Amino acid sequence: MAVNLYIPSESDIHPVAGVQIGAAEAGIRKANHRDLTVFRLAEGSSVAGVFTLNRFRAAPVQVCETHLAAGQGIRALVINTGNANAGTGESGLQAATQTCVELANILDIKPQQVLPFSTGVILEPLPLDRLVAALPQAVADTADNNWFMAAHSIMTTDTQPKIVSRRVALGNNTITITGISKGAGMIRPNMATMLGFLATDAGIAPELLTDMVRSIANLSFNRITVDGDTSTNDSFIVMATGQSAVRIESVSDPLYAPLYKALAEAATELAQKIVRDAEGATKFMTVHVEQAKTPEEALKVAYSVAQSPLVKTAFYASDPNLGRILCAIGYAGIADLDVSGVNLWLGDVMVASQGGRHPNYQEEDGQRVMQQAEIPMRIALGRGEASETVYTCDFSHEYVTINADYRS
Amino acid sequence: MAVNLYIPSESDIHPVAGVQIGAAEAGIRKANHRDLTVFRLAEGSSVAGVFTLNRFRAAPVQVCETHLAAGQGIRALVINTGNANAGTGESGLQAATQTCVELANILDIKPQQVLPFSTGVILEPLPLDRLVAALPQAVADTADNNWFMAAHSIMTTDTQPKIVSRRVALGNNTITITGISKGAGMIRPNMATMLGFLATDAGIAPELLTDMVRSIANLSFNRITVDGDTSTNDSFIVMATGQSAVRIESVSDPLYAPLYKALAEAATELAQKIVRDAEGATKFMTVHVEQAKTPEEALKVAYSVAQSPLVKTAFYASDPNLGRILCAIGYAGIADLDVSGVNLWLGDVMVASQGGRHPNYQEEDGQRVMQQAEIPMRIALGRGEASETVYTCDFSHEYVTINADYRS
Repeated sequence: MAVNLYIPSESDIHPVAGVQIGAAEAGIRKANHRDLTVFRLAEGSSVAGVFTLNRFRAAPVQVCETHLAAGQGIRALVINTGNANAGTGESGLQAATQTCVELANILDIKPQQVLPFSTGVILEPLPLDRLVAALPQAVADTADNNWFMAAHSIMTTDTQPKIVSRRVALGNNTITITGISKGAGMIRPNMATMLGFLATDAGIAPELLTDMVRSIANLSFNRITVDGDTSTNDSFIVMATGQSAVRIESVSDPLYAPLYKALAEAATELAQKIVRDAEGATKFMTVHVEQAKTPEEALKVAYSVAQSPLVKTAFYASDPNLGRILCAIGYAGIADLDVSGVNLWLGDVMVASQGGRHPNYQEEDGQRVMQQAEIPMRIALGRGEASETVYTCDFSHEYVTINADYRS
Repeated sequence: MAVNLYIPSESDIHPVAGVQIGAAEAGIRKANHRDLTVFRLAEGSSVAGVFTLNRFRAAPVQVCETHLAAGQGIRALVINTGNANAGTGESGLQAATQTCVELANILDIKPQQVLPFSTGVILEPLPLDRLVAALPQAVADTADNNWFMAAHSIMTTDTQPKIVSRRVALGNNTITITGISKGAGMIRPNMATMLGFLATDAGIAPELLTDMVRSIANLSFNRITVDGDTSTNDSFIVMATGQSAVRIESVSDPLYAPLYKALAEAATELAQKIVRDAEGATKFMTVHVEQAKTPEEALKVAYSVAQSPLVKTAFYASDPNLGRILCAIGYAGIADLDVSGVNLWLGDVMVASQGGRHPNYQEEDGQRVMQQAEIPMRIALGRGEASETVYTCDFSHEYVTINADYRS
């Protein structure tokens, strides 16, 4: 039961010139599910990505980094669900590499021009034979207008497809931005999220795109948390096919800023959709921390609150047990925090001032905000100018049910 | 439903000479519950404590530190449940101080000789009038043999009383060690736990006791986690009444080491009892990390695993989805961890070797260990000599139920 997750109708999704997508049933983990997705990219596309900082990086993440560094020009992506190909050692690396070799053979490109992605159960061998056997079908299926299907194909415990699509006027031209993501659990991205793919027909110089994708990830996928578990497979990819008339070579281009803004907004929407459809989520919470000394400090406090099981269960119950928020601020690791400077608002209700209960705070007011599906929280630390925002959800019985039964 | 939590019968609990305990119903939050407990200590007792590092330290914690520092000799403790007196600002501090003044008046001691403790809901004013009104009844009730009652009186969401009691031969004498604790939720002690009180009739020099209590807290209460939430009220107190023939002045005393060991074992048992009776716990897990470069590094990995909601829900379901453990090791924050050196055992079953699934690992073997109520986990990082152990529990529907309904 996703929280206010907007799903565009299929007819509102704009294909991106230079991107074709196909999918097939490989039976990686379960039958009767399109668990294998292939993206084909026009020659000359720029592709950049950011990946998990988990030390147990999945084999496909390692191969992605190698292939991006090879600089041969990425021409295809291959994504499987049902198996993360993580914690699989040397044989996992070989399986990810071989996946690229097989797809490259079919498409008549180099293996280094393929990026592989996997999501699913960790510590189980990837069934390479079944994956490879389904590749020709996925390639045969590729078409411009398959974004909606792809958003479904990459889902695991997601209940809804996550997709953004928009047309943006840039100067005298109009470009298209369309993207998909998946998430649901094991979500505290560290450089990127579980899987996010964003494409545009704008042209963007490769080095510039590399800088942009890092910066955009920091504004979007690196600002969400469901359960604090940074996955082994987090990957966020931006593809710029250059099939429109727009081409950006540097930050000094007057169209750079509006293009950056459009891509960042699309990425933020994709990231927020992951929170809205998080495992068991019934509420969407925005934790905004301001008056911090540094952005790092603001993030520490925001994540401490956003990840507290006690805060999250109180929100689930619509119980304004708001002392739990102060408690989480207090253990966020700011050794010299003077709590008498801390103020807290829930929506427009001032809950705590000068480190204690605000004199005018009434429990009914807190209760009213807690019952909303979208809950904004604002924490002022009273010690500086920095601010940061993190998006999270509540913690429900359903989260436990889903994760206790994930593999069955 | 506590996990293998041993409750001694009342007749097996040894009073500690020099300690008298009484309780009364103050109606702090709910009626018909002995929510106010008073300890009286013989003159000449040494008392030392460690307290939460949460920056939102509760008012009673701040008063405890002031009164311990005053060095007047602690003669009484007063403990209320139902209200944490935290996030209550200046008026909360006044309420905690006034509690000490009122009890001191009744006992004819100085206010600085009283330590106050509170546990319960944060951000609500302490009902001082009701508390003070019940003090005479609690004092009138004080007796040597009330430890069992006190273990009940300090409970909040605990389902079982937590109590240890033992007699220990030291040289030619025998001393008594008896203690109680409470926990249940908001448990990741940082210097101490929610509430732990340990008393002995051995005499211990005050400065020595101060050192001992810090070191013992680090071995016991600072090695448990339920939900990663470091409380505002964590307090661990050791009282040494000196009413036995044993008196220890320094670490060079031959009886120091066995006394330290006996106190540390009692504290560890009290701390483990908090995990065994944690909110919703159905399993007790020991996370042992070895071959780390430093103890800090071992702790980072141990807590990362012990606090992962995904690991904890898998244990709840007895589902050997053990890749989640590798994932949590990977995001523990060791930037240069070479995962190919990581080995993992569940009980006697080797699950992962050299960073991947162990060739001989069979899911049935993992399943067998997962079904146990007590699950030992061993993680070897392959990069040093340091090791640490952390105790935790699984994460169940019941945890969500308890914490969604805590205040109702």
